[in-house]
Amino acid sequence: MSHFLTLRSVDEVFDHIKTFAPLPSEPISLDALALDPVPRVLAEDCAAKTDLPGFVRSTMDGFAVYARDVFGASEGQPALLDCRGECEMGAEPAFSLRPGQTARVWTGGMIPEGADAVVMLEYSRPASGAMLELTRPVAPGENLIRKDEDARKGQVLLPAGARLRPQELGLLAALGETTVPVRQRPRVAIISSGDEILPPSATPRPGQVRDINTHTLMSLAASCGAECRSFGIVPDNEDALYTTVAEAMDYARIVILSGGSSAGQRDFTLHALSRLEGCEIFAHGVAISPGKPIIVAKKGEHSLWGMPGHAASALVCAIVFIKPLIERLSGTRPAAPLRPAAVLTRPVSSAQGRRDYIRVAVLPPETEGGPLRAHPVMGKSGLITTLVEADALIVCHESREGLYAGQTVELLPFS
Amino acid sequence: MSHFLTLRSVDEVFDHIKTFAPLPSEPISLDALALDPVPRVLAEDCAAKTDLPGFVRSTMDGFAVYARDVFGASEGQPALLDCRGECEMGAEPAFSLRPGQTARVWTGGMIPEGADAVVMLEYSRPASGAMLELTRPVAPGENLIRKDEDARKGQVLLPAGARLRPQELGLLAALGETTVPVRQRPRVAIISSGDEILPPSATPRPGQVRDINTHTLMSLAASCGAECRSFGIVPDNEDALYTTVAEAMDYARIVILSGGSSAGQRDFTLHALSRLEGCEIFAHGVAISPGKPIIVAKKGEHSLWGMPGHAASALVCAIVFIKPLIERLSGTRPAAPLRPAAVLTRPVSSAQGRRDYIRVAVLPPETEGGPLRAHPVMGKSGLITTLVEADALIVCHESREGLYAGQTVELLPFS
Repeated sequence: MSHFLTLRSVDEVFDHIKTFAPLPSEPISLDALALDPVPRVLAEDCAAKTDLPGFVRSTMDGFAVYARDVFGASEGQPALLDCRGECEMGAEPAFSLRPGQTARVWTGGMIPEGADAVVMLEYSRPASGAMLELTRPVAPGENLIRKDEDARKGQVLLPAGARLRPQELGLLAALGETTVPVRQRPRVAIISSGDEILPPSATPRPGQVRDINTHTLMSLAASCGAECRSFGIVPDNEDALYTTVAEAMDYARIVILSGGSSAGQRDFTLHALSRLEGCEIFAHGVAISPGKPIIVAKKGEHSLWGMPGHAASALVCAIVFIKPLIERLSGTRPAAPLRPAAVLTRPVSSAQGRRDYIRVAVLPPETEGGPLRAHPVMGKSGLITTLVEADALIVCHESREGLYAGQTVELLPFS
Repeated sequence: MSHFLTLRSVDEVFDHIKTFAPLPSEPISLDALALDPVPRVLAEDCAAKTDLPGFVRSTMDGFAVYARDVFGASEGQPALLDCRGECEMGAEPAFSLRPGQTARVWTGGMIPEGADAVVMLEYSRPASGAMLELTRPVAPGENLIRKDEDARKGQVLLPAGARLRPQELGLLAALGETTVPVRQRPRVAIISSGDEILPPSATPRPGQVRDINTHTLMSLAASCGAECRSFGIVPDNEDALYTTVAEAMDYARIVILSGGSSAGQRDFTLHALSRLEGCEIFAHGVAISPGKPIIVAKKGEHSLWGMPGHAASALVCAIVFIKPLIERLSGTRPAAPLRPAAVLTRPVSSAQGRRDYIRVAVLPPETEGGPLRAHPVMGKSGLITTLVEADALIVCHESREGLYAGQTVELLPFS
């Protein structure tokens, strides 16, 4: 056993993640943001420079009116109004309205000064000359959007930390914000290690296996919006690992090694990290399953992770820890997690003092309208197929010895 | 009113979406797939060409044994075994074991012929010479992975239509599949129309507004894994719209127009689409709120959509219809939807015969462990801020006149 051994709880690691500061801001064009499949995060509050829409806008094709002119109007007793003409789209109406007057307006168009409501086209019919009959009453404000109804000048509409989903980009477009200050994308470097590990293109001899973790960890980080680079497969050699880690740190704030993190002799990861000047080994072992032998280290602004070599352990630990770390560096404001629920199909045993992340397949309800079912996928943490069969993780907390069949559990979906 | 008017139900539009065939396959490198934030979809079944891991592999640092040699072993009565040496990582052991013999093995290493279990390092201590004491029993098969435990040669591991999440990429890496047949990414062309619409970089005069829909619709399509291109803002002119639609169809199977889809005079979208030879107007109006005036058309393999101009209507319709259309063209197998639940904070009224998609903000539980709360965001469908305040949609079905406060509702999260 190494004298470095420092076992931490899952929550202690979550707290450790919060010690990292969000990345600096960079200006990105609205057009580029709209093409990015993973939302970027706003780096500064965004206030409205003008009212939105900025003028009183019709929400219907119809006729702008003084609402009181059509009070009580009906098929039998229509209101008779003088139509001043049509309001052109995209322009300020050339006239204003007085009581007794109306004007043709289009959906999205500006209504003339004086009018306070719009009667839908369907409730109009021509009368003699420029006169028009309207057959339905409207309340003041009906079928229009007020000048500042979407946004009021000066109002902070998007706070720093907001994720720029389609609707936020739409609002920025409406405000004319064509270049947006967003947090830099976190970068993640992936290093695989192990004398028995070959690249996927090679043909293993007995005793050798192809590298799984590089692709799973890169894909996970990419799905969280990180930029990723693989630093290849390093042999079980402390010097080689040390050199590669140093190189990876030039590229990325987050460096993930996989393999070599057991408590045994081959603690090359631990020794290589310990040689980095100023590197703090925060955890050597975490009370989590799968993934107990994980190493968590910090050197300045760099976060360094020694993941277990087992494919399922490495990916589960990345989902549990690397995903929130990427969110932390991205500066995202925490949101209420939307976690679907399911009913467990069979009992799961666990050990007190350890947090278990259990892979489950999510099955449709047994009866229409019934709850989803979470079926535990059993299998060793070295088996990648157990994760392929799974749709989500469920958690068994430290204080529990297991979960029982029929229990309602929260699902942490993979994606 | 146009004579084209064909009102459809939401389910009829969903059935219409199923009339489109998935896109052809293309080979993509595993490395590129791992860098893609949105999973691609496998185009062909993938069977294991070899067993995985392909040899009996230790899951622990320890000693390979015949399990029966350590039956009953304890601290007080250890089993005494002859250690043949160490099994090198990444190679076939140079020796096999006979009863009474053991060998040092590492996590992930191949265990020697003859051994059927591994005793953890922690339960070993050196004895005289090459002899070793083991202080714990193991069952046959304990602490190792069988030759074909992760995958059996010939077994179909991933069916066509599987989404290539991190774990699927890991499995493909393990199988040596470095080039993978995946469905082409759907392409989406976005066209905005309206004389009152300006690009976000312009400064509107009264009566003019900046284009919102291009950015919201592009961002939504990109988040679903589509490639997108904007075809600009077209004035309210049938010829210009027709020419731009034809151009957009050269680029994309999915063409989305926004604006001009009301039932009134400015039906340029409808007329432009009707002029395309062989174009079927499937729906002119859908019983959905927001978004009733939507136009749905099909010409051969092209799917053409006239979205309402209202920003919130256009985006909600894209979430409801364009997202499943992109999934359909991507060839994804349908999965059990993981929909979180929440309790409605206040009643919502609706109209029978129409399906309502109601924007809700998701609030944390009122009491620890309680349910999430869904708070309806009220506001006109022309207001983009209503979507900015929302976290999800909830559905009120055609058969209902509303939802009541305290009712449990399914959430359709935005992302």
